Amino acid sequence: MATDTILPLNDIKLLTPSHPTKMIGLWNNFYSRATEEGCEKPLHPLYFMKANGSLSATGQTIRQPPSYDGPVAFEGELGIVIGKLCANVSETNAEHYIFGYTCVNDVTARGVMREDPSFVQWTRAKSFDTFGAVGPVIATDLNVSTLEVRTLVNGIEQQNYPVNDMFFLPHQIVSRLSQDMTLYPGDVIACGTSIGTGPMLPGCTVEVKIEGIGTLVNDFKQS
Amino acid sequence: MATDTILPLNDIKLLTPSHPTKMIGLWNNFYSRATEEGCEKPLHPLYFMKANGSLSATGQTIRQPPSYDGPVAFEGELGIVIGKLCANVSETNAEHYIFGYTCVNDVTARGVMREDPSFVQWTRAKSFDTFGAVGPVIATDLNVSTLEVRTLVNGIEQQNYPVNDMFFLPHQIVSRLSQDMTLYPGDVIACGTSIGTGPMLPGCTVEVKIEGIGTLVNDFKQS
Repeated sequence: MATDTILPLNDIKLLTPSHPTKMIGLWNNFYSRATEEGCEKPLHPLYFMKANGSLSATGQTIRQPPSYDGPVAFEGELGIVIGKLCANVSETNAEHYIFGYTCVNDVTARGVMREDPSFVQWTRAKSFDTFGAVGPVIATDLNVSTLEVRTLVNGIEQQNYPVNDMFFLPHQIVSRLSQDMTLYPGDVIACGTSIGTGPMLPGCTVEVKIEGIGTLVNDFKQS
Repeated sequence: MATDTILPLNDIKLLTPSHPTKMIGLWNNFYSRATEEGCEKPLHPLYFMKANGSLSATGQTIRQPPSYDGPVAFEGELGIVIGKLCANVSETNAEHYIFGYTCVNDVTARGVMREDPSFVQWTRAKSFDTFGAVGPVIATDLNVSTLEVRTLVNGIEQQNYPVNDMFFLPHQIVSRLSQDMTLYPGDVIACGTSIGTGPMLPGCTVEVKIEGIGTLVNDFKQS
């Protein structure tokens, strides 16, 4: 509930701006990255889910899991936040179902993903506790087509890519995914990452910055 | 809240016996099926997630999605229901975190799974609304090692396999998955299916029966 009380940001702890019923992440959604990796535009958005328990807020520490000592990667992304129950909506109507946008660090345990030759472990690699950093806020009334996603590690820029390089833009993603399953208010869809992802080493700080939204900041530490 | 009121089953509509924060499904967890498909025992349970919105209760109609007219398959499975917050538990202690067991029909849109050669669409194929049938109840104090999972389509048995043919038994699954992510009360883990899965044709009725739990019954219809 909104009040007139104003608190200094330093005195409060921000939580994740949404409690999604599900968090979806896209793979292979950028021309530049697809070119680099020899992929083609898919017929339909390709996606996985991150466990809700993986969500972490800005300022929260992302932790190397005690059971895994392999490489962990940052992936700076634009996140869509659903505003209304959404099933079978057209591309034309999809924007009415988007409440706003947030920053996402889709943290990934690279070492487990292809550990088994018969099954790519997307769910496991993406779902360790704290691996779904989302925030700091949900921004509304943004013109997403002009946005750029920047990721900095220890203050040094590693990613800087335009949203309009996406194969599927947010309204197209929402429309397509709403044909597959009902989307609920608060659900988060991370739009996939582009070039420049890289390792998170214990002790580092990762920032995902999108103008008009803000900066999602997380330290990364051993458990 | 428990009351003394007793209602005839025919007068009530059963809901899903749990509202999980997540529903996990295992792949390749049975010796017999692995033998048939040329797979080997994996080093760690291999799993995907089904969207929470896919949950359906016993008696509820499973629907062919309007956006997909390809084959839909039944997969009768034993479902574990978590009872307590569960992180990094040992195999020895894991049973204390299991509240009970239920029947699952892990309905799958076979046609979308391998539509894209570069990415197996587990999440999409498993998450269509109504594709996660769970119920009718959660049974406690079961000796799972002696259970058999039976699946009937229009009254004719299609699956009948023993739980003790699993690569990873329920307490091992819970222990291993709790190393990957925190499990929450109510979370459902479908233990994977064995041989005998097959198509669901519009108009059919699928029953998943496990002695000591009961029968999960769902009709399958066009949207």
